Amino acid sequence: MPVTLTDNNYGKQAVRLVTVRREEERHELKDVTVAIRFEGDFAAAYAAGENQGVFPTDTMKNTVYALAAENPFEDIESFGLLLTDHFLEASPRASAVRVNLTEHLWEPIEAGESPHPHAFRRAGSEQRTAVVTRDRQGGAGVVAGIEDLVVMKTAKSAFEGFPRDRYTTLKETSDRLLATAVRATWTYARTDVAFGRLWHEVRRRLLEAFAHHDSLSVQHTLYAMGEAALEIAEVEEIHLSMPNKHHIPVDLTPFGLENRNEIFVATVEPYGLIEGTLRRMSS
Amino acid sequence: MPVTLTDNNYGKQAVRLVTVRREEERHELKDVTVAIRFEGDFAAAYAAGENQGVFPTDTMKNTVYALAAENPFEDIESFGLLLTDHFLEASPRASAVRVNLTEHLWEPIEAGESPHPHAFRRAGSEQRTAVVTRDRQGGAGVVAGIEDLVVMKTAKSAFEGFPRDRYTTLKETSDRLLATAVRATWTYARTDVAFGRLWHEVRRRLLEAFAHHDSLSVQHTLYAMGEAALEIAEVEEIHLSMPNKHHIPVDLTPFGLENRNEIFVATVEPYGLIEGTLRRMSS
Amino acid sequence: MPVTLTDNNYGKQAVRLVTVRREEERHELKDVTVAIRFEGDFAAAYAAGENQGVFPTDTMKNTVYALAAENPFEDIESFGLLLTDHFLEASPRASAVRVNLTEHLWEPIEAGESPHPHAFRRAGSEQRTAVVTRDRQGGAGVVAGIEDLVVMKTAKSAFEGFPRDRYTTLKETSDRLLATAVRATWTYARTDVAFGRLWHEVRRRLLEAFAHHDSLSVQHTLYAMGEAALEIAEVEEIHLSMPNKHHIPVDLTPFGLENRNEIFVATVEPYGLIEGTLRRMSS
Amino acid sequence: MPVTLTDNNYGKQAVRLVTVRREEERHELKDVTVAIRFEGDFAAAYAAGENQGVFPTDTMKNTVYALAAENPFEDIESFGLLLTDHFLEASPRASAVRVNLTEHLWEPIEAGESPHPHAFRRAGSEQRTAVVTRDRQGGAGVVAGIEDLVVMKTAKSAFEGFPRDRYTTLKETSDRLLATAVRATWTYARTDVAFGRLWHEVRRRLLEAFAHHDSLSVQHTLYAMGEAALEIAEVEEIHLSMPNKHHIPVDLTPFGLENRNEIFVATVEPYGLIEGTLRRMSS
Repeated sequence: MPVTLTDNNYGKQAVRLVTVRREEERHELKDVTVAIRFEGDFAAAYAAGENQGVFPTDTMKNTVYALAAENPFEDIESFGLLLTDHFLEASPRASAVRVNLTEHLWEPIEAGESPHPHAFRRAGSEQRTAVVTRDRQGGAGVVAGIEDLVVMKTAKSAFEGFPRDRYTTLKETSDRLLATAVRATWTYARTDVAFGRLWHEVRRRLLEAFAHHDSLSVQHTLYAMGEAALEIAEVEEIHLSMPNKHHIPVDLTPFGLENRNEIFVATVEPYGLIEGTLRRMSS
Repeated sequence: MPVTLTDNNYGKQAVRLVTVRREEERHELKDVTVAIRFEGDFAAAYAAGENQGVFPTDTMKNTVYALAAENPFEDIESFGLLLTDHFLEASPRASAVRVNLTEHLWEPIEAGESPHPHAFRRAGSEQRTAVVTRDRQGGAGVVAGIEDLVVMKTAKSAFEGFPRDRYTTLKETSDRLLATAVRATWTYARTDVAFGRLWHEVRRRLLEAFAHHDSLSVQHTLYAMGEAALEIAEVEEIHLSMPNKHHIPVDLTPFGLENRNEIFVATVEPYGLIEGTLRRMSS
Repeated sequence: MPVTLTDNNYGKQAVRLVTVRREEERHELKDVTVAIRFEGDFAAAYAAGENQGVFPTDTMKNTVYALAAENPFEDIESFGLLLTDHFLEASPRASAVRVNLTEHLWEPIEAGESPHPHAFRRAGSEQRTAVVTRDRQGGAGVVAGIEDLVVMKTAKSAFEGFPRDRYTTLKETSDRLLATAVRATWTYARTDVAFGRLWHEVRRRLLEAFAHHDSLSVQHTLYAMGEAALEIAEVEEIHLSMPNKHHIPVDLTPFGLENRNEIFVATVEPYGLIEGTLRRMSS
Repeated sequence: MPVTLTDNNYGKQAVRLVTVRREEERHELKDVTVAIRFEGDFAAAYAAGENQGVFPTDTMKNTVYALAAENPFEDIESFGLLLTDHFLEASPRASAVRVNLTEHLWEPIEAGESPHPHAFRRAGSEQRTAVVTRDRQGGAGVVAGIEDLVVMKTAKSAFEGFPRDRYTTLKETSDRLLATAVRATWTYARTDVAFGRLWHEVRRRLLEAFAHHDSLSVQHTLYAMGEAALEIAEVEEIHLSMPNKHHIPVDLTPFGLENRNEIFVATVEPYGLIEGTLRRMSS
């Protein structure tokens, strides 16, 4: 039967890399999960089992460790640029390489008066992410991000004025809890920006915009957060994905009690999901 | 600052629906998780908090239950077609609606000689999936699928002849374990095919192709599985995603023992990931 | 400060062992996760960092692979007995050793007319478990088990006649869905019974009792299942843990519809949990 | 067949409670998961399906919300004491009640100069726990705890001098990474102590002891942490459970590189598990 391979990719996922730089004053700890993905001219491998162009995923893994040893990195974005550069050269059959990096964040333990120089505490579930892509035509792209930034507002959040039909039972509310786990990814115009400083600046703006916003809906707050991030000149575009982690006021009237908007049940299923991409308009 | 919303979508995730049809002979049990996603002209909701066109995600959830009550369905694909049809009509602002359905499979308990008429056992982690999309121009698409079909071959799997560089340590092997958790999604040419029969037919072919294949790589077996599925006339295209769940022979020589390809450590991290899309060529 | 170590244990968790026995007719595949725990006189290790009696957990792991290579086993219970025997001898400081084994079950793929000899499919999330304990006084105990056996009854399940107080809102029901994920563990009177045959026999009886029972509550069905298992002479005692995975009828009246006990929402939180231990009375 | 119910318990798990106290200056947010377990004279419910003494688990859930509304609480320990007191009175058949509370911690978002009064960020995966037990004889016990406190030392951790046998391959090391996810539970001598202040004090001591310790093994560090906690007079006993989350130096010699103790692979399976209970000796 005439069949064609219209699309393909392969690579290594979940390469776990931890590096320690033992500086005199304090240790620098990096904890990163790396995924590598090759696209390219691999049809013969799929159709005929010809492996001579198939760069092994095991070698990808080894390369991550070796390059990390030879090139101590400040930021996952830089390390991704280095890896994609290497892999494109190492695998002539690959037309494009994508590297996803997820950094698990650690903070020095506060021991006594000051941060301890070589003892650390995991700074929560929040993660710093980067996706670096590079193709043989020379194009490289960096998408920085933040994952699982869990936040809640207990005031200044409403949802009113929505359309109603036969199946609508939701009550309008001018004062609800708004909780979400923000996933944000943004693109930089160039690949030589100050990745570390900018990541912290985007994160700070997202948090402040969320905190200060007078929210009429999740969409509305998402937009305000995106706008705040786009005030940073280096940020070209931002994508935000915000699950609506519903907190439902408990009906206490069967027990002869009134719920003065104080008692809620946190639910996991079902949940809303609101997504949007904002871009600075070229002036 | 001049900012534009270039992309947006919203909806409800993880709507859990269980239906029981109490037929005389036996009960019909369906267990489905539904996700609904609207795309469209919602810029005013994001930018200005105008909710008059924002069909609430809570109403989406209610609608799933109400429509399931009024329209007992045979297949998740049909139910998805019904839901998308309804939602496009119910929300004039939506330009396209996508519904993802994941069916959790149950089997009658074998009790005594025969399957019990109203007692069931969960048939493993494997799931039947469907994605139905519909836009206001009248186009509808159905992508059927199978998720988490975990399989292993203990013979007829090799990986040899791959390129080597400075960072390659992997040994060639003519006899390795090949284990994966198949995720397959395929498109039908039309929306009025026999969804149930075809799903079982694709599944059977995927399993048989995996079992019988003389594998030179994961890519090679993926292709053989895709080809087998495309022999079904109604299947236009199939996408396969196959993690390489590595089983590594344990080095027993430090203990004065030989490993005759019998003792393995199953690993979770890192893992290979091989993906490909096959399409029938138009003749 | 005068402090004492009142209790301690240590060991290795999550040792993943896969063995393949390449018999002429077919391959025998075993997939087991092993955990080892030592108790004993290790106070000096804790209090003073004296390691001369601390059998490394890394050696525990190696030993699992080496002993599996030298001693192909039929049943996880037998392998557990072998391991505990070895470890007690290998570590003079240990007063007791416990080994937990969890078997991930695979079935031959049905390919064509017959089961394939070396291609397998994971048989669901259900797992076979064993806990083997042994102390230096010569006592050994075997607790066999089954984990995550997910079942549902769509008829013959009621919950009525319960007490009501100020906070009770639950309606009585004579016909509800009853779904659970059974965890069962049972003890054998001796360590030389037919572990494989008995495990399948207990499993069969649990499933049949669940299917046939006219249930007045989860407690009631748990008891019937335990009784059925205790009809096997070799089973001395059985512990059952059964979460009540609630399926709540959806109120369709706001939509002008009636729910004829057909449309349910499956919930994950909160859930009931019912546990009980049944024992054969000595006559 | 003569069968007896030797042990039983039942209750509700995963009751999700979120409360907001809207004080003038700032909102007080509590996010707690509650589990309730009854033990007692329920044999007739199991054996005969007699439900007249079976306090429904649904009522347990309602009671959590109602009592939280009527009794705003400072600490989960106090709320647990209130709940157990209520449940013992409400269910005459129960001989003992146990309530497990897990608090998910939130911090005010730093927005501008100061913490925001009603916007919060989840403070990581770390959780505060409490187990309150009460029986009809009047005894009540409070076990406070901390769960998933993930920490790592990049210096001052060794493992040497351990015994070797035929299956030992582990190398001695005087400088390894030590990472763990601490679970600690401790008992208070009385039920009227300053729960909040003491919890923070125990947590601080555990972290400082971990950071400062010159570790000869996980056991050794566990003991030092336990000792530090027991310096608080109100703490009678502490149990510590510390998985050894292995970070293995990568062998870079195949690539012509030296690993100067800087490049590690973080592994999830297998892992060591070290546990111990320390108690203040009565003087």
